[in-house]
Amino acid sequence: MRAAVYAGAGGPEVIRVERRPIPQPDHGEVLIRVHASAMNRADVLQRQGRYPPPPGAPADIGGMELAGTVVSLGSGAQRWRAGDRVFGLISGGAHADFVVAHGSTLAAVPDTMSWTDAGAAPEAFITAHDALEQAAAREGDYVLVHAVASGVGLAAIQLVRARRATPLGTSRSAEKLERARDFGLAAGFPAQHGVDGLADWVLLRTEDHGADIVLDLLGGEYVPASVKSLAMRGRLILIGTLAGAEATVPLHVVLRRRLTIRGTVLRSRTFDERAHDTRGFERDVVPLLAADTVRPVVDTVLPLERIAEAHEIVESNRTFGKVVIRMTDEEA
Amino acid sequence: MRAAVYAGAGGPEVIRVERRPIPQPDHGEVLIRVHASAMNRADVLQRQGRYPPPPGAPADIGGMELAGTVVSLGSGAQRWRAGDRVFGLISGGAHADFVVAHGSTLAAVPDTMSWTDAGAAPEAFITAHDALEQAAAREGDYVLVHAVASGVGLAAIQLVRARRATPLGTSRSAEKLERARDFGLAAGFPAQHGVDGLADWVLLRTEDHGADIVLDLLGGEYVPASVKSLAMRGRLILIGTLAGAEATVPLHVVLRRRLTIRGTVLRSRTFDERAHDTRGFERDVVPLLAADTVRPVVDTVLPLERIAEAHEIVESNRTFGKVVIRMTDEEA
Repeated sequence: MRAAVYAGAGGPEVIRVERRPIPQPDHGEVLIRVHASAMNRADVLQRQGRYPPPPGAPADIGGMELAGTVVSLGSGAQRWRAGDRVFGLISGGAHADFVVAHGSTLAAVPDTMSWTDAGAAPEAFITAHDALEQAAAREGDYVLVHAVASGVGLAAIQLVRARRATPLGTSRSAEKLERARDFGLAAGFPAQHGVDGLADWVLLRTEDHGADIVLDLLGGEYVPASVKSLAMRGRLILIGTLAGAEATVPLHVVLRRRLTIRGTVLRSRTFDERAHDTRGFERDVVPLLAADTVRPVVDTVLPLERIAEAHEIVESNRTFGKVVIRMTDEEA
Repeated sequence: MRAAVYAGAGGPEVIRVERRPIPQPDHGEVLIRVHASAMNRADVLQRQGRYPPPPGAPADIGGMELAGTVVSLGSGAQRWRAGDRVFGLISGGAHADFVVAHGSTLAAVPDTMSWTDAGAAPEAFITAHDALEQAAAREGDYVLVHAVASGVGLAAIQLVRARRATPLGTSRSAEKLERARDFGLAAGFPAQHGVDGLADWVLLRTEDHGADIVLDLLGGEYVPASVKSLAMRGRLILIGTLAGAEATVPLHVVLRRRLTIRGTVLRSRTFDERAHDTRGFERDVVPLLAADTVRPVVDTVLPLERIAEAHEIVESNRTFGKVVIRMTDEEA
């Protein structure tokens, strides 16, 4: 099979599309013909040698999410049959023609979804859904989403709307904020020059209530600004630290408003947790995808041979939604 | 009645013991003859003009906890009868001969408890119990308690033991750490020169596991040190910021270990929350107090007339446990 291999650590030039043996499904696993995958920031970090993949994942092939067709079953693999259309998150290796995944970490792709959309969905929607669950997002809440034009950000604002809550967002691009309105964004804070004034802006946009929830993929200076933006008993879910791995936090605000700050990454989770996350996705999100109530936002689609371009596009920070890698050109 | 009144904002010299009218119980409230109360840091801050009391509390009389006898009932007050021995937390005003409190925020004092012990119990045990509940402390957990010789700290380590978990603690006094062993402290980190090296010490004392929970009354530099000390999915409950209202937090650790940092203060809670806290105290802690499984730690007992000395003692940071104010000299 073909696989996009990192031949050492470095820029996009270390990526080679090479032949590799088709992996064999272990106990409980299924072998999947990958039709589509997508890019994630972790793929770039892994290519740079800054994100060692967890045990069990291929060391030199990226790809954390996939959509494809079940080819064969390992011993004890239940539920799936050859030919089933599945999607889900894996530890790595999806930027290839075939990959193995445990049956418990897969969900059925709705009939109405294209392979491109299905490949763009798992990471963004599982991450956003899990963060909203951890934050106990409820009807009527104000939810502030940083990096709103990212795959996770655009999934989050749609899921917030589906919960009859109000999504607010930040982006360094005013144009992206404008485009995000089509996906339900109620108001956008342009962060070209940082997040000074964010808390006042949030108060203004929430009738002096503050944000009940902040979903933060950025960290750094976004954390103190988010803390100050939160309402009493508000919750900040930290999903990434792209803007800085340290922050000066106003503890007196955390204390007085009884705030919760929680860090979360999907990649370090145990198998049982991943299976649980997948069931939550299947239960709460897949029906919304099937009904087109929420939908993945695809910035660019590239074939596997052009994956180096996909890395460059992700690193440019110019994307609006996901960069999808197609292994086949089958439509659905 | 006598009341310890703050005649302006300042040092202990602004305190006067004066005559004030006995308050009248409102709907749902009871009038209580106070036998004992205790000092809290918030009393000192209120005296200094740095902690305005919440609406409904007397502006110039401190005292957030009490033990006493029900004298009379306001309209609609249920459950209690004249003569009942009660204790609980209030918004202020307990440093006086009489005070009113809502019936839902009181619990029955066990027959075996002295007034002095009963007056020392509510704030320390309700705060510690609530923090352990919020942190979901379970059998087998390692729980690191900062300022372990404070009223809350000594209550916490006993409640941790009662949950069959292991209490570790810090104090700036090696002698206090030694004394805390009598109340169940498994190991103490002397913080005379700060908390450098705390995370390594915690790893050593927890078989390389890290702390599942940190209860932090101090904030400041204790926060980053606590974050680094936490195990995967650990929880830091911030109860105070005596050591600093800001902290530089290593977000990458929060993210990767999926930590939770939560601020909590009792004083800003709603009435329903206070009633809920009191029921938790009554259900989980009062039976332990009655059985002498846990007990309040009393540093000093002073009569109301000497309350200025009580303020000085609390400000000295030399206490081990609570400073109790007695309104009467009845024994039980």
